[in-house]
Amino acid sequence: MTPALEILQKQLKQLPGIGYRSAERIALHLLVEKPGRLPELVAALESAAKNVRRCTLCGNLSEEELCPVCADEKRGHGLVCVVEYVQDLAAIERSGAYRGRYHVLHGKLSPIRGVAPEDLNFGALLERIANGEVAELILALSNDVEGEATCHYLLERLPKTGIKVTRIGFGLPSGSGVLYADSVTLKSALDGRRDYS
Amino acid sequence: MTPALEILQKQLKQLPGIGYRSAERIALHLLVEKPGRLPELVAALESAAKNVRRCTLCGNLSEEELCPVCADEKRGHGLVCVVEYVQDLAAIERSGAYRGRYHVLHGKLSPIRGVAPEDLNFGALLERIANGEVAELILALSNDVEGEATCHYLLERLPKTGIKVTRIGFGLPSGSGVLYADSVTLKSALDGRRDYS
Repeated sequence: MTPALEILQKQLKQLPGIGYRSAERIALHLLVEKPGRLPELVAALESAAKNVRRCTLCGNLSEEELCPVCADEKRGHGLVCVVEYVQDLAAIERSGAYRGRYHVLHGKLSPIRGVAPEDLNFGALLERIANGEVAELILALSNDVEGEATCHYLLERLPKTGIKVTRIGFGLPSGSGVLYADSVTLKSALDGRRDYS
Repeated sequence: MTPALEILQKQLKQLPGIGYRSAERIALHLLVEKPGRLPELVAALESAAKNVRRCTLCGNLSEEELCPVCADEKRGHGLVCVVEYVQDLAAIERSGAYRGRYHVLHGKLSPIRGVAPEDLNFGALLERIANGEVAELILALSNDVEGEATCHYLLERLPKTGIKVTRIGFGLPSGSGVLYADSVTLKSALDGRRDYS
């Protein structure tokens, strides 16, 4: 193992989902098998670092002042979906089930992991509400204690302007049945039961 | 999804073991969660690309003319272990079970995948043998058709100088039993049975 290779493997191992063995495999892939890909990867990393920043309105990643969603006039309508991470936004976009705008908090409140309200993108959301942009706020935060706490925190700080606030549905995931669900999911599903008549 | 981010994710997805979801997670990790790590990763990639090359003797990765194994005078003794990939060498080194030198072929013969003898590091091995460096050649190639074909090819081209040629043992992996072995492994294990008296 040479020193430069060791440093590269250590860097790769710090990436999420990359263990010791994957780091070794990727490093050797880039150095031995496909050395032509290494400069391409470096260029892509540098270009992304240089060009990608946060949308000033919603916190999504963007290469302009506004991200493609916020820049799209057709996606107004006062619907704003609050998500924890950019990945959540991307997942909802892939589903094609939503045509409103977003607000990315970049996390959720967590005393244990030291995430306080000032670490999250709350201020810009309250500003958007004050500007009258929001008619309905859809809270698409996780179905867990931290997600719930974040929703509560937000609800308490919302101005009494009568905007509608909803929480996305909880329950069985698509394609799954009661038999395969854990008891907390079942509780969510029962609590979230809807009129079906 | 911004263009620079899309290019970065495409680059990451081409790495071995990285799928769509991991690429997204890594890209956002480097851009949103830990932006400080991105320049470190770029520096590590560039330094490895610049400094790491092949050992002129055995084909292992090296930052000098000779890799640490070949440069180590204590590891001579005429033992040379032939492996397919640098990863194989690293795995044997981790095991601590071997104190000789190596020769990395950088692949195995495979007509299906278009790997011909001239794609592999055979020439340097025959040179090492001609130079009298090798007393025993340990063939640590895979226990599969391609590994076997590569061993055969090599055996036919070896000079009739009476160097000893051995093949590593096949059979049950450590900690495993007959019950859990597939039938090809069991055939290997029976063919490779050793005197135990």
